[in-house]
Amino acid sequence: MPSNRDLPVADPELIAELVAFAGVLADVARTETLRRFRTHLKVESKPGEGENLHAVTGFDPVTEADRAAEHAMRARIAAHYPEHGVEGEEFPPVPAVCPWSWTLDPIDGTRAFISGIPLWGVLIALSFHGRPIIGIIDQPYLDERYIGFPGGALARIRGQTDHLHIRDCERMDHAILATSDPFLFKGAEDSAFSRLREKCRLTRFGTDCYSYALVASGHIDLVAESGLKPWDVRALIPVVEGAGGIITNWRGMPAQDGGQVLAAGDPRMHAEALVHLRRAATKE
Amino acid sequence: MPSNRDLPVADPELIAELVAFAGVLADVARTETLRRFRTHLKVESKPGEGENLHAVTGFDPVTEADRAAEHAMRARIAAHYPEHGVEGEEFPPVPAVCPWSWTLDPIDGTRAFISGIPLWGVLIALSFHGRPIIGIIDQPYLDERYIGFPGGALARIRGQTDHLHIRDCERMDHAILATSDPFLFKGAEDSAFSRLREKCRLTRFGTDCYSYALVASGHIDLVAESGLKPWDVRALIPVVEGAGGIITNWRGMPAQDGGQVLAAGDPRMHAEALVHLRRAATKE
Repeated sequence: MPSNRDLPVADPELIAELVAFAGVLADVARTETLRRFRTHLKVESKPGEGENLHAVTGFDPVTEADRAAEHAMRARIAAHYPEHGVEGEEFPPVPAVCPWSWTLDPIDGTRAFISGIPLWGVLIALSFHGRPIIGIIDQPYLDERYIGFPGGALARIRGQTDHLHIRDCERMDHAILATSDPFLFKGAEDSAFSRLREKCRLTRFGTDCYSYALVASGHIDLVAESGLKPWDVRALIPVVEGAGGIITNWRGMPAQDGGQVLAAGDPRMHAEALVHLRRAATKE
Repeated sequence: MPSNRDLPVADPELIAELVAFAGVLADVARTETLRRFRTHLKVESKPGEGENLHAVTGFDPVTEADRAAEHAMRARIAAHYPEHGVEGEEFPPVPAVCPWSWTLDPIDGTRAFISGIPLWGVLIALSFHGRPIIGIIDQPYLDERYIGFPGGALARIRGQTDHLHIRDCERMDHAILATSDPFLFKGAEDSAFSRLREKCRLTRFGTDCYSYALVASGHIDLVAESGLKPWDVRALIPVVEGAGGIITNWRGMPAQDGGQVLAAGDPRMHAEALVHLRRAATKE
């Protein structure tokens, strides 16, 4: 296993192998999620988190699809790369005995999933020494897969593969902004996001991980979110960066640990949005 | 042409002919919209409405796709049913010289359309003496068509046709609520919607007409909106009602003229939601 921190970028064959394997993981997750989408699901709440079902922020459903997809991906990783680490939303982490580790979110956007809305996604990230190198955002129902890797990003949409490119958008009053749920922002975050929203041309809600795919493909200019977990964000980083965009936390630092996240296609847009959000950035 | 107000329900052959023709309209609109979806569009604002591009409520884009699709549908109607009336968002109304009239919205959810999000829809309604009898909600990118008619509703999804049925949901804390944009509600409306949102299990935003299709197919329980135009709502009525649901304004009266709209799958849920919204209902 490589230990040189620069190796992944310098070894295109290894990268190609790992991108292909990440695609296999997306395929098995697609099977497990798609067969349960729009069927009657037993929606559970996680232990200790399920008391306040009335509030949007307190609702965190866990579905059979979530567990089956993560289980299937973990089984493939254990069989092919037993030395790789794995962390995911549904099961305890597997520590790495090498620099590589996978971060899995079998269904990002569980609320969309249980509502029958096809904007949830399977998120798969591979990190090297903790830095996300390869990322996949897969939407099984739409048959859309967004793949980021060192130096580029691709979309495979209904059998057709194209390079992903962000679009230029310098002026905020021309920008399309997206976030998952406006009621997830509290206090200073809420004020900062409202400022941003009022400056942008229009704002879309309810898009979860799919909004980052739309940034990478040049349809949306800006995404601001808060309260993300590592498995919500790691897969997004190679996709957005590979398409020419920028993704950081609200202090402008690496976003790989989650929390407050800001993604933009145009770097100038990112810099301007950061001015508004930085005041509400958490300290660590 | 029929003049008896009960005729449409009593004449299944006529209904079948008109449902088939509505499907032809949806096909031509599909062609015109889909070829322009996710391409670079010239987004205009309507005369007199385009000054405040910064506010979500002031942004009302008109695209080439909108106009081309409505033009194509109007041409078909003029050729096949020249005596029918037509009203749509993009062109002046054609008065009816018989009891039948069409209401067209070539792209409901223009903001989703220009953001690359496949939750916009083509809306087609046929009314008899002003009452919507046949309705289509078509999502071209997803290849999903929801069709309502006297006594029933069907979904044709990726080549497979099934009957549409709402789901039972008596308890509001089990319900999934949807609306297009939480910032479209003002004053008393905003308070009433917030009460509803806090009582429901979860709320989805950004779904436009697609949320009514999800009510009809039993994935979502409740939709509350405000400020709808006649062409935003007429096509929804036969779909929701044909699937066993209820759709009214916030006073519990017919929704066909738009304004404040409430749709529910389960009639008990509709009655309970109405208690919360009625206080914010406009007078006429």
